[in-house]
Amino acid sequence: MTSTIWLRLGQYLRDTQLLGSIHSTLYWDQNTVMPTAAAPWRGEQLSLLAKLLHLRQSSHEFEDLILEASTELQKETSLDIKEINERKRNLDLLSLELNRQKRLDSQLVVHLATAQTDGYSLWQAAKSDNDYKKFAPALKKLIELRQEQSRQLDEPRSCWETLAQPFEPDLTIKRLNELFNPLKDRLPSLINDLKPCSHLKLGGWDLDVKSQHKLCERLLNEWGRDENITSLGRSPHPFSITLGPKDFRLTSRVVKGQPFSCFLATAHEWGHSLYEQGLPSQSHQWFGWPLGQATSMAVHESQSLFWENRVARSRDFSNRFWKYFANEGAPVSNGLDLWKLMNPLAPGLNRVEADELSYGMHILIRTDLEIALLEQGLDVWDLPNEWNKRYKELLGVTPSNDAEGCLQDVHWSEGAFGYFPSYLLGHLISAQLSEAMASALNFEGIKSEDPLGQCIRDGKESKLLKWLREEVHVFGRKVNAEKLVKEVTGKALSSHAFLNYLEKKVNMLTCTS
Amino acid sequence: MTSTIWLRLGQYLRDTQLLGSIHSTLYWDQNTVMPTAAAPWRGEQLSLLAKLLHLRQSSHEFEDLILEASTELQKETSLDIKEINERKRNLDLLSLELNRQKRLDSQLVVHLATAQTDGYSLWQAAKSDNDYKKFAPALKKLIELRQEQSRQLDEPRSCWETLAQPFEPDLTIKRLNELFNPLKDRLPSLINDLKPCSHLKLGGWDLDVKSQHKLCERLLNEWGRDENITSLGRSPHPFSITLGPKDFRLTSRVVKGQPFSCFLATAHEWGHSLYEQGLPSQSHQWFGWPLGQATSMAVHESQSLFWENRVARSRDFSNRFWKYFANEGAPVSNGLDLWKLMNPLAPGLNRVEADELSYGMHILIRTDLEIALLEQGLDVWDLPNEWNKRYKELLGVTPSNDAEGCLQDVHWSEGAFGYFPSYLLGHLISAQLSEAMASALNFEGIKSEDPLGQCIRDGKESKLLKWLREEVHVFGRKVNAEKLVKEVTGKALSSHAFLNYLEKKVNMLTCTS
Repeated sequence: MTSTIWLRLGQYLRDTQLLGSIHSTLYWDQNTVMPTAAAPWRGEQLSLLAKLLHLRQSSHEFEDLILEASTELQKETSLDIKEINERKRNLDLLSLELNRQKRLDSQLVVHLATAQTDGYSLWQAAKSDNDYKKFAPALKKLIELRQEQSRQLDEPRSCWETLAQPFEPDLTIKRLNELFNPLKDRLPSLINDLKPCSHLKLGGWDLDVKSQHKLCERLLNEWGRDENITSLGRSPHPFSITLGPKDFRLTSRVVKGQPFSCFLATAHEWGHSLYEQGLPSQSHQWFGWPLGQATSMAVHESQSLFWENRVARSRDFSNRFWKYFANEGAPVSNGLDLWKLMNPLAPGLNRVEADELSYGMHILIRTDLEIALLEQGLDVWDLPNEWNKRYKELLGVTPSNDAEGCLQDVHWSEGAFGYFPSYLLGHLISAQLSEAMASALNFEGIKSEDPLGQCIRDGKESKLLKWLREEVHVFGRKVNAEKLVKEVTGKALSSHAFLNYLEKKVNMLTCTS
Repeated sequence: MTSTIWLRLGQYLRDTQLLGSIHSTLYWDQNTVMPTAAAPWRGEQLSLLAKLLHLRQSSHEFEDLILEASTELQKETSLDIKEINERKRNLDLLSLELNRQKRLDSQLVVHLATAQTDGYSLWQAAKSDNDYKKFAPALKKLIELRQEQSRQLDEPRSCWETLAQPFEPDLTIKRLNELFNPLKDRLPSLINDLKPCSHLKLGGWDLDVKSQHKLCERLLNEWGRDENITSLGRSPHPFSITLGPKDFRLTSRVVKGQPFSCFLATAHEWGHSLYEQGLPSQSHQWFGWPLGQATSMAVHESQSLFWENRVARSRDFSNRFWKYFANEGAPVSNGLDLWKLMNPLAPGLNRVEADELSYGMHILIRTDLEIALLEQGLDVWDLPNEWNKRYKELLGVTPSNDAEGCLQDVHWSEGAFGYFPSYLLGHLISAQLSEAMASALNFEGIKSEDPLGQCIRDGKESKLLKWLREEVHVFGRKVNAEKLVKEVTGKALSSHAFLNYLEKKVNMLTCTS
């Protein structure tokens, strides 16, 4: 039996993917080299592509292909059960997405695309001029359009939950609270307990741009970057994006006075890229089929956080890398110095630069605020006050201006609501996966109390990557995030591993300071 | 009377232009930051866009709009004669292009797009490995597809002439010979006469990458670059491209041992960009309407050559800029030193690095060879020999390998045949326009024997740009290249002005050496 319809559907998905990746290429260019005044035209280009994509993703032709492929699959006799199940899962996910797209009015899709480009460009101006009122009307517009989108999607979920689905399939606010409440309870006291212990502080020195780029180059080379398939760029907000089956891009940026910012951002974005590089793109036509795609943003984030925090910020990594930092002029004479500098554990205003301990608080604040904006009537004009109030209460710091405060992150400027929790879920997943990885490495014969550290010490991060590829990356969207974690670790996702890890790290830093 | 159809046609053209500029953005990215292994997917993206563009440019909807707009225009009573003539010209050019597109089979369009991407990528590999046989089959394929294209277009012209039309509307081989034969006669003897006069030679020194970029930055700043609408990049072959109404890009590259290469390429590409920046894009919806577009590649080239040769390579410019070069370590103590170094007048192998005297010979060789490849049965496998033979005969130099020889230029790798003559025509046009500009500046009160030099001496290149904007740029495709030259200079295009200029320059360089 030949899978005729299946192949036609695959070709259809491939063409959609081509268009989607063109959209991504324009996004990359917009964020790396496009001159600022070009933004309105770029917005029109992106809107046109969004319209064409929406048409393809909601067309009768597509719907018929999915239906016919299901019928064909029922009659299929030459496939094994594993392949049949995979095909079923692909078709289920396609149907789900098709139904979403069909419910959306194409005018709304175009309006949203335009509002996203406008929002991004106004946010940039507002942030650089530290002038929230330049951005507020665009944010209001984006919120209204997203609320309208949620109404049109008409799912049995709240507005915020509906918008979070593309990032975290099946996530509910209830489940989020279960996972986050222990953090809300424990993090503030952990942060507080830490205060009496002083240790090496950042400040008073910096690394020049060239040195930072050199260190990043070394990092990526040691982590196996293949220049034939990866390009680096600079952008105001670091990101990683995949533009083709062999086209992985990442950006970073040097922040004055923050000598580790570029380095850690590179480690982070490289983690994202490794996940994408490890997805089963060949068997699923390069993301054309759902199973070739990342299963959730939290899993994505768990991968970037793994490389940033579990590896680059580890004691063993510092022992290996301190001399390169010293060569570039960093005030470090051993691994311990570098490790402390890379792990300041001091609550600050900035999410991206936050330490692992206070990072969660940044997310908890944003999550509450975006739910309030979308579902509880928080006015955009009250956002700066609300933001500052919560930072004062929960982290004990107050932004001196909105650029440091509610204008800090790019997400809302692009209308991405429901994304932030993925970062913190990513911490939880990363911690739980790391525990499982440690057991597996022990089992494989690395007889160490800290087998991850052992691999890092030996410059054998490839072993960590191998485990991630085989246990996480290769599954794509075969299962959702929580199920993946359960299958890989044998336990339901919780905050235990993350809190354990934090307590141990705080303890180590305190003891050695 | 409302121009309903006119507005609808304008909207249609605008959407086509959006798609076209997306294609250009992908091209830019491909040439500046894309990793090499990404080429096949990029090829598929470009093919998809080429297909979509072709569909739009040959659709019934488009055809009907053009026809209906013509009818509407005949009944139009509220427009003045100038506007009616402009609209007529727009419609004539649209019809011409529509008829061309309609004759093309869409399969051919897709095949060509793929062959162009493959050709470019194989050319890159062949050039870097100095291995012509890697590229030859792709070149053969491109020639066959272009010949097929010419057959499908079925114009009353030869194959080469048909392919040259998009670059030089109305050009014939007969007219080309009329214009180029005096150069074929005179240039070799001019080059020969020069030989006994020795003068300062390049070689033995270089400027580092940072210095070269610094000098380029200064050049563009002094020439009025607006960073909000322009971006710079690096690519193996310098180019200029416009991606949106306020999105002008240019690239350059540093060539080891050629300390002026990057600087002069920047001047050259900036000249291209200035032409595009000066086109009547507002009144003609940013290139959507033909009158908003460049009238020919020769006129385009005349603008880039003007800024490269008439300005950056002039004696007066050297007097102004030598100290900046000296600061970066160039072995110059005055303007004369720099001027001589920038004008070596020594025949070499490389077109882009060629002096103004031998430049023409590079073009004459390429033009003859591409006519031979397309119309006279020259086999692609014989190309290297033919190339080397002609270089020996006409310029007295022999490439030591094909990378220096027939693999030198990018054009054929993208299937662009019929383009090369535009470069030399550009020299002729630039020379003739410069004479007219000099008269106009005299007339405006700059009482100097060399009013262009006077402006350059005073750092008032903006006066030169103003004249070009008002006399050349603003006309877009209102008239074709030859007619434009006739209207602006009062004389039919010929090689006189260019040869006069060359003889004078050779004389000056000889006297001062």
